[in-house]
Amino acid sequence: MGTTQLESVPEPKYWHLKTVLSEALDSEFSVGEILPNERDLAARFGVARATLRQALEQLELEGRLQRRRGVGTTVAPPRVGVAVGTRRHVWPGAADDAWQLVDCVQAAPPAAVAAALETGAGETVHTVRRSRTSHGQLVATELLYVPAASVPDLTAIDAPNGPARARAVLRELQRLDLEGQDRAVELGSARADDAKDLDRLPGAPVLVVTTRFHAEGRTAALSVATYRADTCRLTFGDSPDVEIHHDPEQRAS
Amino acid sequence: MGTTQLESVPEPKYWHLKTVLSEALDSEFSVGEILPNERDLAARFGVARATLRQALEQLELEGRLQRRRGVGTTVAPPRVGVAVGTRRHVWPGAADDAWQLVDCVQAAPPAAVAAALETGAGETVHTVRRSRTSHGQLVATELLYVPAASVPDLTAIDAPNGPARARAVLRELQRLDLEGQDRAVELGSARADDAKDLDRLPGAPVLVVTTRFHAEGRTAALSVATYRADTCRLTFGDSPDVEIHHDPEQRAS
Repeated sequence: MGTTQLESVPEPKYWHLKTVLSEALDSEFSVGEILPNERDLAARFGVARATLRQALEQLELEGRLQRRRGVGTTVAPPRVGVAVGTRRHVWPGAADDAWQLVDCVQAAPPAAVAAALETGAGETVHTVRRSRTSHGQLVATELLYVPAASVPDLTAIDAPNGPARARAVLRELQRLDLEGQDRAVELGSARADDAKDLDRLPGAPVLVVTTRFHAEGRTAALSVATYRADTCRLTFGDSPDVEIHHDPEQRAS
Repeated sequence: MGTTQLESVPEPKYWHLKTVLSEALDSEFSVGEILPNERDLAARFGVARATLRQALEQLELEGRLQRRRGVGTTVAPPRVGVAVGTRRHVWPGAADDAWQLVDCVQAAPPAAVAAALETGAGETVHTVRRSRTSHGQLVATELLYVPAASVPDLTAIDAPNGPARARAVLRELQRLDLEGQDRAVELGSARADDAKDLDRLPGAPVLVVTTRFHAEGRTAALSVATYRADTCRLTFGDSPDVEIHHDPEQRAS
């Protein structure tokens, strides 16, 4: 990659640098390869390290680069399409569900969740923890909140906690007639424990998918799923994967 | 807000600071209020400015704070739910479409778009630019790519460019039988021109929604929409808005 003269362009310097770096990634580097260190890169392109860092941050947001502690900055593989909305109106835990059960505890949910579930202040709900793997990598963690009113026949014989309890909660949930569901996707930052599970640094950008399951005229369960934003593209619709990648450099004008 | 002793906690310092700041935002500040400057805040909480900045960045990712050039850091209003997937299988420009036409040009699309549309190298397509407003604020910009093959009856009498041309392209698109559509949501960074329209800094995190419209056994049109990630929550499903906010602090354990 040649050292392009960056002084003469009207757009922000890091933005132009990002374009040049992006082209270099395509032509000179392969997926998984470690980039030269920041000092060497900055020298090569004749820019300040602060400028270089801004450009690297953009490329990381766009999923082109991954920064991993102890490894350095590597060229990221293309994002993986993860189907979020293909099967509509299905309870969690139905056949061919993409999620794996981790455990289940009884706990008071966050205030916003309690409000949606219309549970009383401090009232505990079944909280099922699940995780989702794609191409051998953990791509999402989920907390599924199920109030006692939604699973009235859950017996004390079922294990009080853990994966067995999780299975029992999901089994009971299937008895309800699912009337509909709503989903919302928003940007969030990874909690410390999710970050650890997802192999990200705490605070890394994540995509948070909130799903409300409607039954018996109310919100019978609520799921908050946290997806890696660096490696995942969430897909909705008829086919499981949309192969188009966002290319912020090119645009009609 | 009291100055909490931050030294004794095992989690990263900025993470705990974020929790403390988040509580302070709830109890002491109102929406739109400008935060004290970084030096004063750092002194108040007895943390280094680098720690403070990390905490502020997390709160910005979560939509709690907005940083605006020339204004400072302000307390953000709750995110607005923007319906992306409620009306399924409808062509852009159908009745009660949420988007406003901006213009239309003939241009060669990005390589990934050309591949999806199966247009030849360098072949130009109708590129309709639209924008979307919610609660009086521009929340998204869109580029809708329509190959000539999808609108064969478009006449030369129609304006060659501009909003009139955009209307003509969408009118012709409605003639095709829409067989299905796929959507994908992923994290991106705002291009300089989108950033300007969306009142964000270039490179700010955005949510990129790519939609493929299927007709006549192929992808007949492709839309790339860029949503503000700081103020928007994208909703999919039966009802237009999901009122739950992600609260990364509270979790069952």
